[in-house]
Amino acid sequence: MLLTLDLIGILVFAVSGGLLAVRNQLDIVGVIVLAMATGLGGGVIRDVIIGSVPPPAIADWRYLLAPVVAGLVVFFWHPAVGRFERLVNVFDAFGLGLFCVAGALKAEEFGLGPVPSAALGLVTGVGGGIIRDLLAGRIPTVLRNGELYAIPALAGAAVAATGVELGVEPVIIAAPAAAVTIVWRLLAMQRGWSAPVARLSPPE
Amino acid sequence: MLLTLDLIGILVFAVSGGLLAVRNQLDIVGVIVLAMATGLGGGVIRDVIIGSVPPPAIADWRYLLAPVVAGLVVFFWHPAVGRFERLVNVFDAFGLGLFCVAGALKAEEFGLGPVPSAALGLVTGVGGGIIRDLLAGRIPTVLRNGELYAIPALAGAAVAATGVELGVEPVIIAAPAAAVTIVWRLLAMQRGWSAPVARLSPPE
Amino acid sequence: MLLTLDLIGILVFAVSGGLLAVRNQLDIVGVIVLAMATGLGGGVIRDVIIGSVPPPAIADWRYLLAPVVAGLVVFFWHPAVGRFERLVNVFDAFGLGLFCVAGALKAEEFGLGPVPSAALGLVTGVGGGIIRDLLAGRIPTVLRNGELYAIPALAGAAVAATGVELGVEPVIIAAPAAAVTIVWRLLAMQRGWSAPVARLSPPE
Repeated sequence: MLLTLDLIGILVFAVSGGLLAVRNQLDIVGVIVLAMATGLGGGVIRDVIIGSVPPPAIADWRYLLAPVVAGLVVFFWHPAVGRFERLVNVFDAFGLGLFCVAGALKAEEFGLGPVPSAALGLVTGVGGGIIRDLLAGRIPTVLRNGELYAIPALAGAAVAATGVELGVEPVIIAAPAAAVTIVWRLLAMQRGWSAPVARLSPPE
Repeated sequence: MLLTLDLIGILVFAVSGGLLAVRNQLDIVGVIVLAMATGLGGGVIRDVIIGSVPPPAIADWRYLLAPVVAGLVVFFWHPAVGRFERLVNVFDAFGLGLFCVAGALKAEEFGLGPVPSAALGLVTGVGGGIIRDLLAGRIPTVLRNGELYAIPALAGAAVAATGVELGVEPVIIAAPAAAVTIVWRLLAMQRGWSAPVARLSPPE
Repeated sequence: MLLTLDLIGILVFAVSGGLLAVRNQLDIVGVIVLAMATGLGGGVIRDVIIGSVPPPAIADWRYLLAPVVAGLVVFFWHPAVGRFERLVNVFDAFGLGLFCVAGALKAEEFGLGPVPSAALGLVTGVGGGIIRDLLAGRIPTVLRNGELYAIPALAGAAVAATGVELGVEPVIIAAPAAAVTIVWRLLAMQRGWSAPVARLSPPE
């Protein structure tokens, strides 16, 4: 069950990496590498930081090959995949919710406190997309004005970490915590909510 | 005392990350992430390499939240902060000295020899700035012609590592080693010293 | 013997990093850092992921200083080094073969299965070049259309990992596995083979 949810999250993220690679005219290696980096990058960074090595995303061939399959599908059928991009974005919100909560819960399990665990949940959710964007030569979208993405992700991770600190079973808190991220993110997409940008003074 | 020095270094570096993010018109998430990456990045890379995981910069919420506060201050009051940029650069020299020496001493403590420890001191000092620049989409300033930055940093780290190898107590060598970096860096800023660039042959 | 092979691989990769830095007009710090990142980056990423910390590439001063020497040579004599670029590329194919196979064998030694070991062999071979390109502000060449590079690298790593899984002694499988990468890569260079790029539909 957990494996299935994880794999779905990885596949959805991998599709977004593969689509960006195809659009930037990277070759088949670039498409697969961006799919892998987007799908697995956040979890690998978290695991290296908390000392869970080798990370399951690398050591378990099912996690490792899932984004390769996603990358190949995007490479050969990208016009069809691209047509469902709005759907991909909806699934991406679910992937984000799963990753942030799983990341925060794993950090708690490794003995980190609520603030670091929430931060590592966020890293798990957005780290892959940041690596994807750096490899594709663009400033990470999550850092630029546009869509509200990191804040809902951090919120879900914080709910999960706080729940565990208050003694709630991880298996109980996981679903509502993920729901916070998913619902907030979907609402942000639908209503066009965005994160504020600092105003530069006119003469500068 | 050590915590206070560390926090000052983190805050100064975080301000430089936040200012770059504001000027590049990243959103509030970008400002906070760049502040965190600049303030904590070098120490986290060092800790992951020497196996000190989870890194204190992540596991201790005081280290983790310091750059968040710095990022928020920059976001809301950046015109005021930017006016003191020259002062920020002077503090940055102090932060660089502290980070390089602390990095080299920690590597020695983990059993690395003088050459690796000096190198890891340098990584601690300049790693955060490199991540900051990559996230902001520019070639790291420390690698380009401009200011003398990495060489004073390496010098202080080398003095600290050599001192420990010669049997000097870390607490004794720390201040003079940091002074080497800080004084050299401040002189370089004042006199406009810069690192050499290779001359390209005319016809190329 | 193994040390010598490793050092040759590191030196060749470091030269490619140094040349790129000189051409992009980075300063002497940039030349040395790019030489180090290219020569050591792939192995360090692999070691951090499998938990072999501190990585020998950092802890052993011979590995650490080899790319510094290469960087300095490139800095001062780059026109001469650049004239032999075709030769550098041939040596690079040998470095790639050595790195991929050594990376896959080390991952097997640390208990990873054949798929992760082959993937980590690839990371060892191409990771340094990816960091080099990111630091120099360009999209990694290995991801873009151009030369066939990652696929021969993965092939050699896969041969090595499969051999070990089938019970062949690492010392026996190493040479033929490296030969797969080297010969395929040299043929690709000579004949101009390249990796495919997805076709974008005309109206997009």
